[in-house]
Amino acid sequence: MVPDVLDAEALAAVDHWWRAANYLSVGQIYLQADPLQREPLGPDHVKARLLGHWGTTPGLNFVWSHVNRAIRERDTEALFVAGPGHGGPAVVANAWLEGAWTEAYPDVDQTEEGMRRLFKQFSFPGGIPSHAAADVPGSLHEGGELGYALVHATGAVFDDPDLVAVCVIGDGEAETGPLAASWHANKFLDAARDGAVLPVLHLNGYKIANPTVLARMADDELEQYLRGTGWDPLWVSGPGDGEDATPVHQRMAWALDTALDRIAENQRAAREHAAAHDGDPGDRPRWPVLVLRTPKGWTGPHDVDGQPVAGTWRAHQVPLSEVRSDEGHREQLRAWLESYRAEELFDPAGAPTGAVLANRPRDERRMSANPRTNGGLVKKPLRLPDFRSYGVDVPRPGEQMHSPTTVFGDWLRDVMAANPETFRLFGPDEVASNRLQAVFDVTDRQLADGPRDGDSHVQRNGRVMEVLSEHLCQGWLEGYLLTGRHGLFTSYEAFIHIVDSMVNQHAKWLKTTRQLAWRRPLASLNYLLSSHVWRQDHNGFSHQDPGFIDHVVTKKAEITRVYLPPDANTLLSTMDHVLRSEHYVNVVVAGKQQALDYLTVDEAVAHCTRGLGRWAWASSDDGVEPDVVIACAGDIPTQEALAATAILRRRLPELRVRFVNVVDLMRLQPSSEHPHGMPDREYDALFTTDRPVLFAFHGYPTLVHRLTYRRTGHHNLHVRGFVEEGTTTTPFDMVHRNDLDRFRLVMDVIDRVPGLGVRNAGLRQEMADA
Amino acid sequence: MVPDVLDAEALAAVDHWWRAANYLSVGQIYLQADPLQREPLGPDHVKARLLGHWGTTPGLNFVWSHVNRAIRERDTEALFVAGPGHGGPAVVANAWLEGAWTEAYPDVDQTEEGMRRLFKQFSFPGGIPSHAAADVPGSLHEGGELGYALVHATGAVFDDPDLVAVCVIGDGEAETGPLAASWHANKFLDAARDGAVLPVLHLNGYKIANPTVLARMADDELEQYLRGTGWDPLWVSGPGDGEDATPVHQRMAWALDTALDRIAENQRAAREHAAAHDGDPGDRPRWPVLVLRTPKGWTGPHDVDGQPVAGTWRAHQVPLSEVRSDEGHREQLRAWLESYRAEELFDPAGAPTGAVLANRPRDERRMSANPRTNGGLVKKPLRLPDFRSYGVDVPRPGEQMHSPTTVFGDWLRDVMAANPETFRLFGPDEVASNRLQAVFDVTDRQLADGPRDGDSHVQRNGRVMEVLSEHLCQGWLEGYLLTGRHGLFTSYEAFIHIVDSMVNQHAKWLKTTRQLAWRRPLASLNYLLSSHVWRQDHNGFSHQDPGFIDHVVTKKAEITRVYLPPDANTLLSTMDHVLRSEHYVNVVVAGKQQALDYLTVDEAVAHCTRGLGRWAWASSDDGVEPDVVIACAGDIPTQEALAATAILRRRLPELRVRFVNVVDLMRLQPSSEHPHGMPDREYDALFTTDRPVLFAFHGYPTLVHRLTYRRTGHHNLHVRGFVEEGTTTTPFDMVHRNDLDRFRLVMDVIDRVPGLGVRNAGLRQEMADA
Ligand SMILES: Cc1ncc(C[n+]2csc(CCOP(=O)(O)OP(=O)(O)O)c2C)c(N)n1
Ligand SMILES: Cc1ncc(C[n+]2csc(CCOP(=O)(O)OP(=O)(O)O)c2C)c(N)n1
Ligand SMILES: [Mg+2]
Ligand SMILES: [Mg+2]
Repeated sequence: MVPDVLDAEALAAVDHWWRAANYLSVGQIYLQADPLQREPLGPDHVKARLLGHWGTTPGLNFVWSHVNRAIRERDTEALFVAGPGHGGPAVVANAWLEGAWTEAYPDVDQTEEGMRRLFKQFSFPGGIPSHAAADVPGSLHEGGELGYALVHATGAVFDDPDLVAVCVIGDGEAETGPLAASWHANKFLDAARDGAVLPVLHLNGYKIANPTVLARMADDELEQYLRGTGWDPLWVSGPGDGEDATPVHQRMAWALDTALDRIAENQRAAREHAAAHDGDPGDRPRWPVLVLRTPKGWTGPHDVDGQPVAGTWRAHQVPLSEVRSDEGHREQLRAWLESYRAEELFDPAGAPTGAVLANRPRDERRMSANPRTNGGLVKKPLRLPDFRSYGVDVPRPGEQMHSPTTVFGDWLRDVMAANPETFRLFGPDEVASNRLQAVFDVTDRQLADGPRDGDSHVQRNGRVMEVLSEHLCQGWLEGYLLTGRHGLFTSYEAFIHIVDSMVNQHAKWLKTTRQLAWRRPLASLNYLLSSHVWRQDHNGFSHQDPGFIDHVVTKKAEITRVYLPPDANTLLSTMDHVLRSEHYVNVVVAGKQQALDYLTVDEAVAHCTRGLGRWAWASSDDGVEPDVVIACAGDIPTQEALAATAILRRRLPELRVRFVNVVDLMRLQPSSEHPHGMPDREYDALFTTDRPVLFAFHGYPTLVHRLTYRRTGHHNLHVRGFVEEGTTTTPFDMVHRNDLDRFRLVMDVIDRVPGLGVRNAGLRQEMADA
Repeated sequence: MVPDVLDAEALAAVDHWWRAANYLSVGQIYLQADPLQREPLGPDHVKARLLGHWGTTPGLNFVWSHVNRAIRERDTEALFVAGPGHGGPAVVANAWLEGAWTEAYPDVDQTEEGMRRLFKQFSFPGGIPSHAAADVPGSLHEGGELGYALVHATGAVFDDPDLVAVCVIGDGEAETGPLAASWHANKFLDAARDGAVLPVLHLNGYKIANPTVLARMADDELEQYLRGTGWDPLWVSGPGDGEDATPVHQRMAWALDTALDRIAENQRAAREHAAAHDGDPGDRPRWPVLVLRTPKGWTGPHDVDGQPVAGTWRAHQVPLSEVRSDEGHREQLRAWLESYRAEELFDPAGAPTGAVLANRPRDERRMSANPRTNGGLVKKPLRLPDFRSYGVDVPRPGEQMHSPTTVFGDWLRDVMAANPETFRLFGPDEVASNRLQAVFDVTDRQLADGPRDGDSHVQRNGRVMEVLSEHLCQGWLEGYLLTGRHGLFTSYEAFIHIVDSMVNQHAKWLKTTRQLAWRRPLASLNYLLSSHVWRQDHNGFSHQDPGFIDHVVTKKAEITRVYLPPDANTLLSTMDHVLRSEHYVNVVVAGKQQALDYLTVDEAVAHCTRGLGRWAWASSDDGVEPDVVIACAGDIPTQEALAATAILRRRLPELRVRFVNVVDLMRLQPSSEHPHGMPDREYDALFTTDRPVLFAFHGYPTLVHRLTYRRTGHHNLHVRGFVEEGTTTTPFDMVHRNDLDRFRLVMDVIDRVPGLGVRNAGLRQEMADA
């Protein structure tokens, strides 16, 4: 038994709000006319196609209503992450009640006609999606692909000490890998510097057709599970036998107050400690979690056609499916709507009554209007030191060597120093392995449990987020970007596929928000993939996979960018560009091993600005048409292509070779297909329309074909790349196994330039034997 | 304090074995000559490139040695899953000690020269990979991409009651999402029917350069975490101050005995219960887990160049890196090797001594020789009922409708009934949603906690594995296939990208094992993707992504197959084919909604056998050259393409149209690129070399271009498909948004067939307005 914390007035406010949101949710799923039910419910009032997910909705509305009460009392800065974002009707309803919906979409106002539009547009052609999609003010998490609620919420509160991210987690969602890993978020929060996440684990018992694992664990097992992951559970149980919602409201209000008090206390203690100890927040606190056990489809129909619905999996989507044709169903819907007592909730004009609005927070405290959920609104530009002064000297191309990522690391260190509250680096324990260790001069690895002897650069207030979960890295970064900050994810090339699906979802979010006038652009989602396919010296075939870029280019062209800088200075110039850019997914692949330097900083800037270009010093076609074009993209392919050109220059001095390097892969596409695409005329001039083009490529050869198949000279294009042959072996053996080595490229030239083959059988044989 | 369970003899056996495996591990990392250290260690004995991961290795060897002891005493049937498979030297060493290595690779025998080869081949060009890769006898899990140890181990024990899968989990690996979700495996095991998993959580404190989350949790937190997920932890701590390995051996032996006793007791109780209760195993038991806390790089160098190494992150890879050039390092390596007292471990000829072999299990009890780890050896063929008798009647093409997956579901039900111990169905709670509910006539959903009121087809001994984690579905199925069984994964099309990286790894495994003579073919990894991009009526853009097939085709052609059956009978024929096939990754995409039937069963068999073909009844080019080819792949594109053809037949009766449907997408590739590829001559005859080809495609259009860019007529090929435009909307609006609708296809024909455009401006306009 917990004390009643709501007085009659507060209780009425949350209950009215909840009923109003529920009414509006049911309305969205079912009604297309007469939203206030002035007439008896007839078939024509009902949508022809009934779509949507009712089951999770009343729970989301319940949580939202209670958080509103707390916000009003405490002036909390909160946002709402709906893990089960398929409960779209809930977040839409709350945004409308709070007025934010109408601010974004003025024609859906708080009138009867506005309410009709609100209902009709839901899941309707030309209307709005059925999820907590980008279209919903206050949402930064669509929840379509389940599993990322807690990781998004966590990323959102980094470096935002006043923020509380309320995060509803479906008990089904909690079965996913990313969510299961996300519980450890508390090991990576700094209670002094970061905000707080308040997870609400919603045990409504079911996923689609199955019970859930977490709902079927014994209470004491679940209690241990949550305590074991570092949280302090506060249990809220739904209506017991004969109980109405009132005692549940009281229990929820008590749990929420207790949770927010504990959060405040954790933060107070940590901030005091940090002030006295140079920013160190002290021991990791235990954070509260709410465990809310309410029936799936609570307040909806109990039984339909003799089958139990509320409290079972049958409540997941549309509980009454034949409302147009079946009078019994229609009568049930009528009673269901009536149960919310709309006359107490909306005035005759259709606006929420004062009894409802009593529960609405003011202005930007409304969760639907928290400016952080439209991150571009609050985003500050990055302060970027001039990368040119970090460039390496290149007296002559191909003479000296540097590790590109090490060179970039020096600049990155200063980027991190210059943006101590708005930039973070994320990676699955590969920051040092990828040679970015310079950043540890200015910050540390974050671990709330603090360092022990033998640890290196581990602190309770570091800004380098290293966890062996690509999902967490990705999700944290997404949450951080979505709330208006900046960051970089560095990973092995092969394993970034782990987040393919998360990238999909983020790219779709970017594409959608670009079309919403009220959404402001975010900082780009930036990847630096090192330890790539050609240099897996410590590992093997499992670590050799260049296909992430193939995956990314399936997404909308206006969102995706792929860069393959061949050396240190081009990497610097590329990274400066991608960190400045907005609203893209930028993938940069670059080596960490010592590699030849080709371009001075100024040349690198010019080359990267062009995105590709002829390298005069490697070419022998000055002022004439080339016999062959040797093109390349990626550091190792560039090295092999240059070596092949050198052999050709020595052995076939009469051959006119044009050497082209590509940094910005999207340049290869026609300009009709991608904003970076090269106009055909320029492409034809550079690559010719009729000479053989040999392309040494970092990834799968088909990607180059796919980008260039519309080009006039495409039938002359011959691509070498990774053909899925690998093992633990030397770099040269790797290119050799994949027919990308210098000797093979020379043979390709001999085979493809008309006339060369017959005359140069000897050289060809030498190359084959090399 | 635990009792000493090892007598002197048993203690000596495990310790000798452990030292021998450690010696062989260090040898693999460092030595290329003089494996028994007859001469003083010189630079030439040492490999020029030092590669490998030492840190995890002594822990793996320790566990292996102890399990061997238990196997010998109990005759346990065990296999070993090395989560940190980067400890390749360990699994290789143990396989060699057990003789299995030499059985697979006779030239690496148990002689001094064999040992030299063993050392030299490791991580050496032309040698073996550095991981627990397919090359290693006894391995079914490479461990390269971390996170899948426990899920693989679980899949391996399904339907194998006598098997114990010992599964070492790295404390870093435990941070990953898939591993974190995998702990719930115990909710899906049937203690009567399935074998047991014995997880060994290896807290060596570090991942690459960071401490691990689990090692830094307080002991009581970790205890709660594991208990909370349903396990009973048994703690084994490493050497305390001044302790040598002996007490650690005793603690480990006690814990292992206790764990195996509890497993046996759980199984005895469940089997008794099942015998009395119609197969129901009774309440979910708690299973033991070992928590092994030993220093990273245990037994290796303590300090190197003044830095602590053993017990820290510095032990992760090669602790002494300059052994060739630095005499101090060389001396340290000498002392390190000497510490294992090789003279007690190997006889002068290089063979393991009796003191070591005392710890070797017999024959197939050796974990390196467990036939289940070479699943093809023990695989039984599936019993497949004749799918023809499940076909639907098709009096005329395009007249009647069926839900293809429902029709397939009837056959699948009987497949499951006919193979009650060797086939399972996996899915993230979408079996019913994907309309395969007929299977519930013969089996149930598995949940060890059993059903409650309101549940549907939930039992403690079901064979349908539904968990809201694509990772678990995939990993369980992989483990099941790798041990010689059969299965099917059904999922929404969009979210199967969640397992992109797991598919990569499995495809790489298949590719590698195909080249190993001693590995036998496995059953294929089969996907049925329904709820596809064109029919997301309840959902939106986040659920619309057809790119999984783009991903799969980047893998080796001899491994990958993609099928897009257009109707019920072609789906049946396709599924029969894929379930019979071996050693492929088969992706089948098919609709669940009511859709038109086109082909009779016999026609479907002929069509699927061909993989693609002209549909005479939809064509108007009998005996003549067509003016245009209309091609299609996928159910919705086929429907639109047929509708377009119908319009053309009516409105432009003089136009000669050839209608081609493609089921087996790989047919489009040249025969040089894919085993299913169509020879150019046949392709040219079907698609013509000079007529416009309009291709209505299920997925991203570029995939078709990528498969066909080498074909003569490619410049005439115009593909319509998903161009990343979506939301919650009607099926027709979806094709319309993506320019794949019938009217657009008619306009494409008018635009592309020479001469049509000028004459048919009227019809074109009608289509544009439609
Ligand atoms: C990764 C993923 N797999 C599958 C689905 C399909 N799906 C949609 S809703 C749902 C059930 C969700 O259950 P739960 O998290 O408990 O939410 P609630 O009960 O609140 O609806 C599933 C499996 C999905 N959306 N995402
Ligand atoms: C998914 C994935 N991400 C990153 C890596 C790179 N990696 C290789 S080993 C390792 C550390 C593993 O730590 P742990 O699991 O504790 O193993 P151990 O300490 O026993 O070596 C990492 C991060 C990987 N192999 N897989
Ligand atoms: Mg639920
Ligand atoms: Mg470890």
